[in-house]
Amino acid sequence: MPQARNAMFELHPAFPPTSEPLGDLALCHARLQADARYPWTVLIPRIGGLRELEDLSANDRMALMEEVVLAGAAVRAVGLALDRPVEKLNVGQLGNLTPQLHVHVVGRRADDPAWPGPVWGVGTAGAYSEAALGLALATARAALAL
Amino acid sequence: MPQARNAMFELHPAFPPTSEPLGDLALCHARLQADARYPWTVLIPRIGGLRELEDLSANDRMALMEEVVLAGAAVRAVGLALDRPVEKLNVGQLGNLTPQLHVHVVGRRADDPAWPGPVWGVGTAGAYSEAALGLALATARAALAL
Repeated sequence: MPQARNAMFELHPAFPPTSEPLGDLALCHARLQADARYPWTVLIPRIGGLRELEDLSANDRMALMEEVVLAGAAVRAVGLALDRPVEKLNVGQLGNLTPQLHVHVVGRRADDPAWPGPVWGVGTAGAYSEAALGLALATARAALAL
Repeated sequence: MPQARNAMFELHPAFPPTSEPLGDLALCHARLQADARYPWTVLIPRIGGLRELEDLSANDRMALMEEVVLAGAAVRAVGLALDRPVEKLNVGQLGNLTPQLHVHVVGRRADDPAWPGPVWGVGTAGAYSEAALGLALATARAALAL
């Protein structure tokens, strides 16, 4: 379970069934989406009651932006480790289904199943083999210094 | 046409046919998407050669984050002016089709045609009436102090 930055934070129950924990950055709890179709991380600021970027302080927004860039490097590293180098990063903060503020950072390729559209809501998640999931988690954690 | 922040910047030709200029913020050229289905702004940093967030300096990333929050307020103001108050903001930086770095800030409602999925690539743009477009542009410019 992620460490709260304030007493009100609890991870929304929608995240654990669809993603694996990577660890806690300075602001965000980081997770790897359990979807072998794309190298994909999710960042969730560890502060209770957030829904929109405007609910974060300006300082925490800066921290979030830097963690998004770091998550992009992690996603690129996972793509390389799995022999599927990332060609484009996609960043999305939607929250239409899961209201707790979170940011998706997804590695895209022109041969992925949703290209050139967005990944959200398209098809069903691909299952990772145990070996590939282990490699993806280890690679993402190393890139995030977790 | 937007003012360049450096000599290499030229607005990608994909933007003018699908959006209306709002003006230039400190970092970004701001546009209103010509799609009456959603209040929707697009921010394009006025620096040449950018494709990903990591291509911006850390200072410019901070400026971009604050302009995203400002664009969210503008989108909320447009929704109110058109009697369609925004219920959720969606922020996306994709660039799979238009490679020049840009960020979408979209106002969503549970009764909009793409809810709860993302807006990108769904259906065709709705035409604004001349009066509604004028109101949306004036409202967005006022909210952005342009």
